Amino acid sequence: MVIGIGHVAILAGNLDETVKLYRKLFGVTSSEVEVIPEQGVKTAMLDMGGDAKLEILEPLPGSNMEKILEKRGEGIHHICLEVDNVEETLDFLAGEGVNLIDQKARRGLEGMVAFIHPKSTRGVLVELCQKY
Amino acid sequence: MVIGIGHVAILAGNLDETVKLYRKLFGVTSSEVEVIPEQGVKTAMLDMGGDAKLEILEPLPGSNMEKILEKRGEGIHHICLEVDNVEETLDFLAGEGVNLIDQKARRGLEGMVAFIHPKSTRGVLVELCQKY
Repeated sequence: MVIGIGHVAILAGNLDETVKLYRKLFGVTSSEVEVIPEQGVKTAMLDMGGDAKLEILEPLPGSNMEKILEKRGEGIHHICLEVDNVEETLDFLAGEGVNLIDQKARRGLEGMVAFIHPKSTRGVLVELCQKY
Repeated sequence: MVIGIGHVAILAGNLDETVKLYRKLFGVTSSEVEVIPEQGVKTAMLDMGGDAKLEILEPLPGSNMEKILEKRGEGIHHICLEVDNVEETLDFLAGEGVNLIDQKARRGLEGMVAFIHPKSTRGVLVELCQKY
């Protein structure tokens, strides 16, 4: 069951500059930078005041995310829906014929995560996250 | 001052089908459909459980939004940041050299709204909204 939008992720060429820009324009605060090699990014979270955050992603050199950035440019990359039970949600979605990028949840920064293919959700890349 | 993410908007070819799909897959509830001729869309809001919602947008025939859908396909269109004072925010952003699509706020569905050009925000189309 979905319990809210956890974050909206933005793919950018330079994490530090983007975090600085968003901090300056919108007066928000940011988390420490973290490197996630298995997702090919370094990332920071911006606290926007409500319960949904903005995640800034910068591709690591040579990663698949770098190719996505080159192809599509900067912009919104995915939305993360927080769920109470990610394995149950994946089972339900598989039963509905949804195309899952991750058949099983894997360890993410904030919880167990899995991605749904955008062709099953009207062009929207959706991450599911069950927080630790 | 930004007080949270109000919604994330998804541009889709068919509003009713998209709302039905998201309701089925994610167990969320939806608002009544509203037509906003001045924005060239019909729209419904999905309550995702938290304070940020999903807005589904279907272009009206002959609208500029129809051309955007034809060009880019379905997917995430913009994020809406809720602010406590939209005119003050616009003045501040103009002073920072930000490219504003709307120089002044105009009446939207849920409040006074104004859009910022994505070239000032790393490819992200940002709507500001001060709720009524």
